Amino acid sequence: MGIFGSAAKVYRPAAEVDLGPGSAEHYISPNVKAPRVAGLLVKIFGWVLELPVVGWFLLYILKKDNLINKLVSEAEIPEPPLFTSTHSWEDTPEQNVCLTKPDLSPAERVREAVGCLPARLESTLGAGPALKRWTIMDFHRAYSSGETTPVQVAKRFLAAVKESSGPTLNMAFFISCNPEDVLKQAEESTLRYQKGAALSALDGVLVAVKDEIDCMPYPTTGGTRWLGNARPCAADAACVAPLRACGAVLAGKANMHELGAGTSGINPHHGSARNPYDAGKVAGGSSSGSAAVVCAGLCPVALGVDGGGSVRMPAALCGVVGFKPTAGRLSSAGVLPLNWTVGMAGILAGTVEDALVAYSAIVDHSQPSYMRPELNLPMLTSTPSISNVKLAKYAKWFNDSSDDIRSCCDKALQTLRTHYGWETLDVTVPEIEEMRLAHYVTIGSECTASLAKYLDKLKRSEIGWDVRVALAVYGSFSSRAYLNSQRIRNRQMFFHKEIFKTADVIVSPMTGVTAYTLQDDALQSGELDYINGAALIRYSIAGNFLGLPAITVMVGQDKGGLPIGLQFIGRPWSEATLLHIAFAMQEACSKNHRKPAVFYDLLKKD
Amino acid sequence: MGIFGSAAKVYRPAAEVDLGPGSAEHYISPNVKAPRVAGLLVKIFGWVLELPVVGWFLLYILKKDNLINKLVSEAEIPEPPLFTSTHSWEDTPEQNVCLTKPDLSPAERVREAVGCLPARLESTLGAGPALKRWTIMDFHRAYSSGETTPVQVAKRFLAAVKESSGPTLNMAFFISCNPEDVLKQAEESTLRYQKGAALSALDGVLVAVKDEIDCMPYPTTGGTRWLGNARPCAADAACVAPLRACGAVLAGKANMHELGAGTSGINPHHGSARNPYDAGKVAGGSSSGSAAVVCAGLCPVALGVDGGGSVRMPAALCGVVGFKPTAGRLSSAGVLPLNWTVGMAGILAGTVEDALVAYSAIVDHSQPSYMRPELNLPMLTSTPSISNVKLAKYAKWFNDSSDDIRSCCDKALQTLRTHYGWETLDVTVPEIEEMRLAHYVTIGSECTASLAKYLDKLKRSEIGWDVRVALAVYGSFSSRAYLNSQRIRNRQMFFHKEIFKTADVIVSPMTGVTAYTLQDDALQSGELDYINGAALIRYSIAGNFLGLPAITVMVGQDKGGLPIGLQFIGRPWSEATLLHIAFAMQEACSKNHRKPAVFYDLLKKD
Repeated sequence: MGIFGSAAKVYRPAAEVDLGPGSAEHYISPNVKAPRVAGLLVKIFGWVLELPVVGWFLLYILKKDNLINKLVSEAEIPEPPLFTSTHSWEDTPEQNVCLTKPDLSPAERVREAVGCLPARLESTLGAGPALKRWTIMDFHRAYSSGETTPVQVAKRFLAAVKESSGPTLNMAFFISCNPEDVLKQAEESTLRYQKGAALSALDGVLVAVKDEIDCMPYPTTGGTRWLGNARPCAADAACVAPLRACGAVLAGKANMHELGAGTSGINPHHGSARNPYDAGKVAGGSSSGSAAVVCAGLCPVALGVDGGGSVRMPAALCGVVGFKPTAGRLSSAGVLPLNWTVGMAGILAGTVEDALVAYSAIVDHSQPSYMRPELNLPMLTSTPSISNVKLAKYAKWFNDSSDDIRSCCDKALQTLRTHYGWETLDVTVPEIEEMRLAHYVTIGSECTASLAKYLDKLKRSEIGWDVRVALAVYGSFSSRAYLNSQRIRNRQMFFHKEIFKTADVIVSPMTGVTAYTLQDDALQSGELDYINGAALIRYSIAGNFLGLPAITVMVGQDKGGLPIGLQFIGRPWSEATLLHIAFAMQEACSKNHRKPAVFYDLLKKD
Repeated sequence: MGIFGSAAKVYRPAAEVDLGPGSAEHYISPNVKAPRVAGLLVKIFGWVLELPVVGWFLLYILKKDNLINKLVSEAEIPEPPLFTSTHSWEDTPEQNVCLTKPDLSPAERVREAVGCLPARLESTLGAGPALKRWTIMDFHRAYSSGETTPVQVAKRFLAAVKESSGPTLNMAFFISCNPEDVLKQAEESTLRYQKGAALSALDGVLVAVKDEIDCMPYPTTGGTRWLGNARPCAADAACVAPLRACGAVLAGKANMHELGAGTSGINPHHGSARNPYDAGKVAGGSSSGSAAVVCAGLCPVALGVDGGGSVRMPAALCGVVGFKPTAGRLSSAGVLPLNWTVGMAGILAGTVEDALVAYSAIVDHSQPSYMRPELNLPMLTSTPSISNVKLAKYAKWFNDSSDDIRSCCDKALQTLRTHYGWETLDVTVPEIEEMRLAHYVTIGSECTASLAKYLDKLKRSEIGWDVRVALAVYGSFSSRAYLNSQRIRNRQMFFHKEIFKTADVIVSPMTGVTAYTLQDDALQSGELDYINGAALIRYSIAGNFLGLPAITVMVGQDKGGLPIGLQFIGRPWSEATLLHIAFAMQEACSKNHRKPAVFYDLLKKD
């Protein structure tokens, strides 16, 4: 129990740490004792933390009690800091890919991606409980054939948004959705299809955008009620513009956890996005609305932002694909700078195929030439499209999840073995809890520095109580804690690169729990639920802190019918391999998935 | 006077700042009001700062009063952080260079450098007061011709070290110098010359190494009395090994300011290195001993480390060449990690030619290929070796120096104009004081995090009082202050790149004052002299914080005969151009330089 004692941790040189299955490395499951707090109690706690002297003293005590001091701020770490999660381009051979030419337009890249899609019969929504999702290609074919039009689909979408926002369902999917703007885009798209001049397969396809990403004509609120005014939005973000150029109908600004500073998606200002599988459960956060709209069938694709699992966690809780490419693969221009070194845009999609198409549209080709990643697109053929995949699994970490998740994810691995012959390698990923804390110090420090220009002038009452507590902690870190966190980043980069010498991906559950109950006392105050929060975020950090690409796909449902996601974390720039693997996983187990309770069929035959 | 008011500074976007000569940008000369403190007072101040509650309160008041809060920690800065000073390789054409082939050995690179030296008559030490310095080639020719031997020179060197360390002179050049080891190396070199098998032009040449750089068989004390034991030295640093491979006689570990945490070179543990021009004056720091030994003729070359001007400032105060290449050009392996993003090894030399030879030996060729800088060596021919050089000068900054320095440096620029036709461009370098404070937060934070493993366990009484005060401030910075400092780094990188679009170098005095008096009350306690400290460091920061190459050469002497240095700051990777310019400057004005009062002629005819 030494590491829980009073002394700060002394780290051994990273190169001396055993990464094998029999490693003596201690796995720390965060032993959170803090009770869930909501309502009046969270207000009192936040108010005390903000007091000038008493608050500092309380923070001092809390951190002294907390593992952050022992494992990060005061720890002895041999490595120098590594300040960013960006990777120089390395050309690792990938199986069964087509390499796109540089300097293609977004629409041309989408055409290449469409050429990589598997030949398959048109999806249909079954009459039974099994889930079939309309894909981008389903919409494109229906528009091209004249079976329906973007305007007709947009009208159904707007009716569904209206219904779902109403007091009965109260799903709070969107922070803003301008019906006139949606219809205008749909009309233009409809005209293009009538002329046989669709811009791409995405033409007329609805795409929701997390309200952390600039998208005209909306303000970007970041889930607050003040940031949209304080920071005017003047243009589409760099990841939105290519979608518009491809003809996509930008469907509105999806709900999110305020400032991305929480994982539940509970938002006291704009309503709390609810889980379409069970409206009594959270959608997860912070890209709550993006996950929920895709889950509910309102858009085949949505954009989110993933600074600490914020795309992948809600995707898992809502049973959709969540895909965070390698750091730097997507431009951050026009994304709220809530941090600088851990977050980036990501894709939520109903299917892996749609994730591929959206990804091909929005990749950034503007990097300096010495680090420009080449773009491989995976040829998604009927199984198996690649062979001999090696999946690294750290059992202690993998198993630190609910019984349903553990058994479901284990079964998924078994499926991969029996269907494709892919083997699991047992490894040890050391210092996972240390990495989580280092990431917390990093994202908190960067959020504080980045938002200070607004927060220093803002009345605290503009901010939700749970976020006020988070901001009080965020603002309390020393430069030493920040620098030590970057030294831990350096260690973890080393560990992961070592593991990727023998494994193609690291596999884990996406979350430690499935969607949990959205309690009424949290709706106005937010809540502090560090137990569920820690369980949600447990598997997310490497994707952010190390900039590794990661994807989650639904692999089953728990006893309550709530989705369970499996995660694959890949080598830098190996998105094509990740999409291959995720597609294989999807093909092997999606047939049994049940439909969400709140679900809209936008291509239904009238 | 808005920026001195209570509100934090709001920075305009860097791209909107006027860099022209008529810019309205305000130049802040640090208005230091703190009186010089030494002796008992510095002890009391240090003791109070270290008190748990009173000390924090005092630091809070000090920082509130200080411009650090207004200009850095609480400032509003539009740019994201830039965490390091490393530059990707860009091939900027340089005049009159020879491009060395990659993967040459150090001795082969030295041979190339020797081929770049100007043909000239052998230097001689005149009988009069004018200064002529023996160069590496002078030693090499004397060894090769049998006129003298490395052993004979080493014996003279050791006698001079003994004399200068004695109670009469008390120069405190070295922290350690092992006569047996020096003689053994000299004997081996002598044997090689006898066999006609000298390893390179550096064979048998004495090179001193700052005691911040690992060099066998010595401990590396960093100027402390404890670090040599706490951190065993097991091998030569990466910048020392090539010198040994070239046959250089490593002459001992040169004195320095304790932990590099000061600019005076006053060291209460190992004696304070004195200025050979006037033993009553400081040598400057932190590479005090390295500058002083070269000045006194004991070694043609010494290695230093430059984290905040620590090579260039003492070089200027001692009238020698101080050369800090581009960040990353020299490996940091085996240099004490007192910081990670601002410091690197540098070269002190009696002449520009010797700086070139030493540089060619120690450049690092191990970087990853995508950022490996090619190595240009300048062909130093009789003047002018390059033409049409554009020198950017920011008058307000340039003139913020003593009258003697200002007029001497102005005269030097005029000399460059009349001798070579090189023009001066008037520019504005904005936010120089802001950059100094951001650099201070950065180096202080990194020093704290890096040394914590030692300092957390160390009795405070092991540390000098001035450094205890520095460490108390260093440890008090927030992660927000650190991150904002990196945003200021980003702005400054932009400003400097803009200036380098029209200018080849930025020119400034190297220091704002010449060597000042070493007062007796500082010898045991150290001193806090922020007025002289600020004047010394005024021109140093861009070289460290932005990783730009910079060189200083002596251009004259003040009324008291103390040396004055001019500085050239270059584009990334433009060392060859800098050496060309410095050589031209040296050739134009070195004839009038007077000899230091303490000076040894190691090649004198008996």
